[in-house]
Amino acid sequence: MASKKSQKKNQVWLFREGNAQLRDLLGGKGANLAEMTNIGLPVPPGFTITTEVCNDYIKGGKRLPADLMNEVKKALANVEKSMEKKLGDPTHPLLVSVRSGAKFSMPGMMDTILNLGLNDATAQSIIDATGNERFVWDAYRRLVMMFSDVVLGVEKEEFEKIFDHMKKRLGVKNDTEVDAENMKKLTQLFRDHTKKRLGREFPTDPMEQLQLAISSVFDSWDNERAKEYRRTEKISDDLGTAVNVQTMVFGNMGDDSGTGVAFTRNPSTGEKKLFGEYLMNAQGEDVVAGVRTPVDINELAKQSPEIYQQFEEACATLENHYREVQDIEFTIEKGHLYFLQCRSGKRTGPAAIKIAVDLVNEGLISKEEALLRVPPEQLEQCLHPRLKERPASRAVAKGMNAGPGAAGGHIVLDSATSVRRGKKGAGEKVILVRRQTNPDDLGGMLSSEGVLTSEGGRTSHAALVARQFGIPTICGCSEIAIDLKNRTVTTKSGTVLNEGDWITIDGTEGIVYTGQLRTEPPSITGEFKVFMDWADTFRRLKVRANADTPEQATEAITWGAQGIGLCRTEHMFLGDRLPKIQKVILADSDKSRQKALDELLPLQRGDFIGIFKAMGDRPVTIRLVDPPMHEFLIDIEQKTREEVMILRLTKPGSKVLAQKEKLLTKIESHHESNPMLGMRGCRLSIVFPQIVEMQVAAIIGAGCRVKKKGGNPHVEIMIPLVGVDKELSILRKQLDNVSKATMEAEKVNINYSFGTMIEVPRAALTAHEIAKEAAFFSFGTNDLTQLTYGISRDDAGTFLPIYIAKKIIPEDPTLSIDATGVGRLMKICVTEAREVNPKIKIGICGEHGGDPRSVVFCDSIGMDYVSCSPRRVPVARLAAAQAALGADERDK
Amino acid sequence: MASKKSQKKNQVWLFREGNAQLRDLLGGKGANLAEMTNIGLPVPPGFTITTEVCNDYIKGGKRLPADLMNEVKKALANVEKSMEKKLGDPTHPLLVSVRSGAKFSMPGMMDTILNLGLNDATAQSIIDATGNERFVWDAYRRLVMMFSDVVLGVEKEEFEKIFDHMKKRLGVKNDTEVDAENMKKLTQLFRDHTKKRLGREFPTDPMEQLQLAISSVFDSWDNERAKEYRRTEKISDDLGTAVNVQTMVFGNMGDDSGTGVAFTRNPSTGEKKLFGEYLMNAQGEDVVAGVRTPVDINELAKQSPEIYQQFEEACATLENHYREVQDIEFTIEKGHLYFLQCRSGKRTGPAAIKIAVDLVNEGLISKEEALLRVPPEQLEQCLHPRLKERPASRAVAKGMNAGPGAAGGHIVLDSATSVRRGKKGAGEKVILVRRQTNPDDLGGMLSSEGVLTSEGGRTSHAALVARQFGIPTICGCSEIAIDLKNRTVTTKSGTVLNEGDWITIDGTEGIVYTGQLRTEPPSITGEFKVFMDWADTFRRLKVRANADTPEQATEAITWGAQGIGLCRTEHMFLGDRLPKIQKVILADSDKSRQKALDELLPLQRGDFIGIFKAMGDRPVTIRLVDPPMHEFLIDIEQKTREEVMILRLTKPGSKVLAQKEKLLTKIESHHESNPMLGMRGCRLSIVFPQIVEMQVAAIIGAGCRVKKKGGNPHVEIMIPLVGVDKELSILRKQLDNVSKATMEAEKVNINYSFGTMIEVPRAALTAHEIAKEAAFFSFGTNDLTQLTYGISRDDAGTFLPIYIAKKIIPEDPTLSIDATGVGRLMKICVTEAREVNPKIKIGICGEHGGDPRSVVFCDSIGMDYVSCSPRRVPVARLAAAQAALGADERDK
Repeated sequence: MASKKSQKKNQVWLFREGNAQLRDLLGGKGANLAEMTNIGLPVPPGFTITTEVCNDYIKGGKRLPADLMNEVKKALANVEKSMEKKLGDPTHPLLVSVRSGAKFSMPGMMDTILNLGLNDATAQSIIDATGNERFVWDAYRRLVMMFSDVVLGVEKEEFEKIFDHMKKRLGVKNDTEVDAENMKKLTQLFRDHTKKRLGREFPTDPMEQLQLAISSVFDSWDNERAKEYRRTEKISDDLGTAVNVQTMVFGNMGDDSGTGVAFTRNPSTGEKKLFGEYLMNAQGEDVVAGVRTPVDINELAKQSPEIYQQFEEACATLENHYREVQDIEFTIEKGHLYFLQCRSGKRTGPAAIKIAVDLVNEGLISKEEALLRVPPEQLEQCLHPRLKERPASRAVAKGMNAGPGAAGGHIVLDSATSVRRGKKGAGEKVILVRRQTNPDDLGGMLSSEGVLTSEGGRTSHAALVARQFGIPTICGCSEIAIDLKNRTVTTKSGTVLNEGDWITIDGTEGIVYTGQLRTEPPSITGEFKVFMDWADTFRRLKVRANADTPEQATEAITWGAQGIGLCRTEHMFLGDRLPKIQKVILADSDKSRQKALDELLPLQRGDFIGIFKAMGDRPVTIRLVDPPMHEFLIDIEQKTREEVMILRLTKPGSKVLAQKEKLLTKIESHHESNPMLGMRGCRLSIVFPQIVEMQVAAIIGAGCRVKKKGGNPHVEIMIPLVGVDKELSILRKQLDNVSKATMEAEKVNINYSFGTMIEVPRAALTAHEIAKEAAFFSFGTNDLTQLTYGISRDDAGTFLPIYIAKKIIPEDPTLSIDATGVGRLMKICVTEAREVNPKIKIGICGEHGGDPRSVVFCDSIGMDYVSCSPRRVPVARLAAAQAALGADERDK
Repeated sequence: MASKKSQKKNQVWLFREGNAQLRDLLGGKGANLAEMTNIGLPVPPGFTITTEVCNDYIKGGKRLPADLMNEVKKALANVEKSMEKKLGDPTHPLLVSVRSGAKFSMPGMMDTILNLGLNDATAQSIIDATGNERFVWDAYRRLVMMFSDVVLGVEKEEFEKIFDHMKKRLGVKNDTEVDAENMKKLTQLFRDHTKKRLGREFPTDPMEQLQLAISSVFDSWDNERAKEYRRTEKISDDLGTAVNVQTMVFGNMGDDSGTGVAFTRNPSTGEKKLFGEYLMNAQGEDVVAGVRTPVDINELAKQSPEIYQQFEEACATLENHYREVQDIEFTIEKGHLYFLQCRSGKRTGPAAIKIAVDLVNEGLISKEEALLRVPPEQLEQCLHPRLKERPASRAVAKGMNAGPGAAGGHIVLDSATSVRRGKKGAGEKVILVRRQTNPDDLGGMLSSEGVLTSEGGRTSHAALVARQFGIPTICGCSEIAIDLKNRTVTTKSGTVLNEGDWITIDGTEGIVYTGQLRTEPPSITGEFKVFMDWADTFRRLKVRANADTPEQATEAITWGAQGIGLCRTEHMFLGDRLPKIQKVILADSDKSRQKALDELLPLQRGDFIGIFKAMGDRPVTIRLVDPPMHEFLIDIEQKTREEVMILRLTKPGSKVLAQKEKLLTKIESHHESNPMLGMRGCRLSIVFPQIVEMQVAAIIGAGCRVKKKGGNPHVEIMIPLVGVDKELSILRKQLDNVSKATMEAEKVNINYSFGTMIEVPRAALTAHEIAKEAAFFSFGTNDLTQLTYGISRDDAGTFLPIYIAKKIIPEDPTLSIDATGVGRLMKICVTEAREVNPKIKIGICGEHGGDPRSVVFCDSIGMDYVSCSPRRVPVARLAAAQAALGADERDK
């Protein structure tokens, strides 16, 4: 994270002084503006104030460094000289934009001011020069509104109300219908409103405007919206934002002017074709905000072939220069093309893979670079279910396919409801349906299964977020009308959907269906397969899956799992088998216990036969029963307690009451004050070996039967919660006898071994003892993390979120391995286990096994494999490849 | 524990081949018999079978090594030659004893066979040689009984019944009244009984007897009684016992014969004076079993001045040779004195100290040796309360003062009841009252506060156990009569006490009182003080106490505490303050919460003022509130739940019901699934800082006020449960502000610092980060052990005892630090904390701080202090001295 030392100590850099390598210092936008300037693209001149100034500003109690404005004035003079205009000059006034620009793009999160430098005098001068009075007053009223909102804190909505009121009075609908005279009036009304609200005049000194705007951009680094975005994206709060001050060019100077955004390739699909939109006679914010529906970029070829060709060539230059897809903002001012920004284009998972594979095929990048370019988390986006049925009768609307994948859920009409009912709240499946989304909707979007907007195009906020977070999304679906008052969505055909109704959206095709539709899992084919094959050739770590059923095992193989790292067996005691395990636990005699166990044996054996068949000769690690017994007794406890209460009233003193009371006491004897730290795992098996003996008989019996049918199962039996070597040696010996007896009875031998989970800190600390007894170790990092921190996930909800918010811990250690603490134990364990048992296989089966950063950590300490949920297998495969290619913690 | 390599590989050693250094191989008894032989004392010749043979025997499935009996025969031939007698020889028969002898004395735990070699032929031959027919048949019947009991498994009681029956028939009371003819008959009756019970003849081949006896002694190493003793005494099961085969000498050959036991100094008080008992015309078992009341050893000077002088000189020789008090067994056979055993004499704590100090003063040992000679645990025996009142009216009986100290409790008349009701059971205070005790009573004795026997002298089993375990004990109290049938104890004066009545015994004076008497704490004076002063000059570790009240603080200073290592503050919220802290926790508004806190502040300040006054300028470490809040709500939850139930029936729908239901919900919101891992310690303070802010204001306020009155408090504020450095830095900063504000308000500055407990594994693993923020660390090894093992002490009762029994763990890690696992974390922590903060003070305040082995461990990793309960302070001081003198884990 160490920011590169600046080559010069300046706080302010002219565009031509920088380059793309200086992202830490100049931010992404500033560095790219510098780079574009230097490779000869038409970029309006300007300068960048560094991120270091931002950090100084925030540390210094939000005060600009004393000498900053002098440096700004020097750089400005340079720009003014090249433009032959001056900021605030009444005859040749320069107008500038002031924009944020952090190292990592945070679209829409921070503030921007356009048209800065306008006041009555300079406005008149530009009117004189351009003869376009309406344009100038429009620009001026925009400045007043934007500046008042962003810098002075008077909300934009208040100005929009004034504008709406004027339009109503004039009897017009669109902004463009308001003439110059009224725009001038509007400017004055806006200035009056600001004065009324703040008790001071709107600042008309351009240098004062500039200074306030710079402070305001720095302030916006610290606003709540930006902070939440950084938390989600795991961007450090210490980076700061740069400020870019750039000569204004105008896309709204008439029909020979325009503005747009474009990607050099399709960011949804990865297709190699310009992708984007533009609007003639408009400013950039009109495109991004989705207020006017923009035109496909390919239309420009017809409308202005010359400019289109110039644009296309510049795009090719940029892609070749950066060897990466670019996301470009451009403006055409009176027939002149200007580039205002370029950056790596955000894309969906499928697009990321296609682009990476294509760039390798085009010879632009190596396979290694391709693998390092795709964030592993994005692969899950390639695993969105697809619709299995597409009934035309239930298709009610069509829009733009902005985020691929199918999703279904209850309609919610605002983000607050989505947060309350959706993933981040009650856990219902919801589809957020909005006219358009803005940065404040981020929480609501992340809490929903999918997003549907009635306005805005492929580059609207909703589409952008959809691509970045892989949310199935349909944009600009003008065939629906949203009525927020009556909380309904009405389709063109007249179908009225209420908030709460279920809809299914197909983000791949852009079609909205009513009700719930069946989906099917995706598969790894085409470029995805090519890409994953590359990953496999580079990675050192093996990848297994956690799977408890034959179905999960089969799915895991589809995603490329090389074995099962964790097959939990306690699930096999639930459902209609629950009464049987309850009989085992509550048996009054060894005989009745054995009878219940004898009933369970063939059922468990059946489970394992299914799994072994599915897995072929791949290793299958089966964990013996782990949870405290009380977990199996919750329903019977409730039932018995009620029965006892009723019997006490109805049949006091009866024999049946006495029996039930005795049963209740027996059940209650399994209560524990801290069940996580109690009688479970191998402790249970030491004291009460009958259950695991049955399980091992079932496992080995299943293995034998599959082998006799021509299979070749590879069985690894895992004894959980070991903290002392003798726990393992005693149980291993005991269970090995069961294995041998079972194989003898089945008259066939199979490949099996015993190992343990490392989930108790002491196990890691005494690995040099335990490893002598084990063929394999599997880190149970869920418990290991909880015990190392002394926290219980069930209870941590009261403080862990606060810890993360206060930055006491950088992130939830139950999600990504805490390398300093837990990771250190793991490292001790791996090193010392191998010293006494060089052949020991070491893996991880905690949920961290599917977290890319944790996978990189596992690789770094020399583990043999990771195991994760089936759907995370591709993620882990890529993360493992990146680890082998030297990816360290990403530079955030 | 590595047993020294034997200098020769023999399995059998003649006494003259061994020496006292070979305890590992020859056992304590064998090594000392060899040593005595070699320094020229009269020892009946014999040989020792090594402990290694015992281990081979047990490992080999209880089979004697193939070549053993050949070696035994060779050694036997050697003995036979020197005695000019032969085992089984019908003309000159040799009789031998076969005794166990482990490295550490386990009195009465293992088996002994006497008179081995007798059969009809040899018996007749000895009758011919001695002319003492009665003696021979008495010896023979004893052999049959002992051998049948110990070797063949026919219980001794069955033979006693036969004997009782005969005595009744003969109309006699004492064994001595039975004549030779009847003894001969009895021998036959015993043999018939054994035959009847086993279906085979009693073995009459002396070599067969010898071989069976040797096996049987080895078997007895593994019996339940011996195992329990070893568990209590922490003696390893791997040591094995040796077997000593020794020529028999007889104390029962007439009035010029006798047998006895003696200590070279008084083992109760340490006084330098021969101490012991003997019986003329008796065998050793008569003395130990307490069947006949023996005579004080000093009587021997009158009875046989010559032998007494010889004995006294031999005792002096032994003491000078061993430089240690000796416990001696001797026999006089027809005027010849023989030594049968010598060993270090077990003694009470007070005696141990006096003897150690005396031996230094006598120039026999150095101060260092003296300090290493006293087991630290024994010091607690010096801290037995003494009676504060001795009302003659309630004194009902007098016996021998066998174990010093006063103790009171309910009378229990057998060990089973003691175990059920006493310390190891229901936790009541009980006094075990028995005619005499035997090894089977050990559990009952350890479960009682004190022991009272009506028979047996100063060397009886009861007295021995009393000395070893420091149990206040009165022996041979012939003034009481025990009626087991009616469960009463009747005193000479006619007072009838029932089982369950309370008595108080004064083990220092030997007096029994009815009812409960007031006691007073002891103090450190005389030799105890001299000894503790020596300890203090050698130790490096400082010793503090855990004390929560001014009274405890004052007591701690009495025992030599150098500060308070842990002052828990949660106790200060209990009692009549409980409703106030409940108000804080359940407050609806900040205002009402603050009001409740404002009420608590002066109360807490008062607590601290008392403690600071008591402690002077010694450091006082105060831990801020630690437990989960729900612990304060248990009673109010119960009450509110009942109120809600009643209101639901009586006033459904009422406002008061709604209020109570709301309160109940609020209380229940503090429930946690694993409270040990939940919202407590610093987590609570981070989320909810008001309580600790109040506490710090109270602590600093108290310090200021004490300082203004001329005190100089030294305050260390400890923040519990830190696992992440930022928890500490955030709280420290926040609380430092409170401290400063308080000092400003009080207008005086005091000496204070902030530190943390290391009780979460992650804290130890990241000590290099946390140490930067802390002035001190204190290991909370209770939680650290629980988290490192992943066990909760509250729940471990279901498996930990089984783990210890199965030797999965050598001992309970919550009692003595687990050096391999938990200790390793501690070492990492100390080392790395000092690297970043060389001045950091590091101590321990878990219960391990008073455990001698843990203290030695703390010294070994370079900690600064230990802290323990006030009464353990002398123990810790001595353990610290021993650590400094190089005591390592004791060789057990």
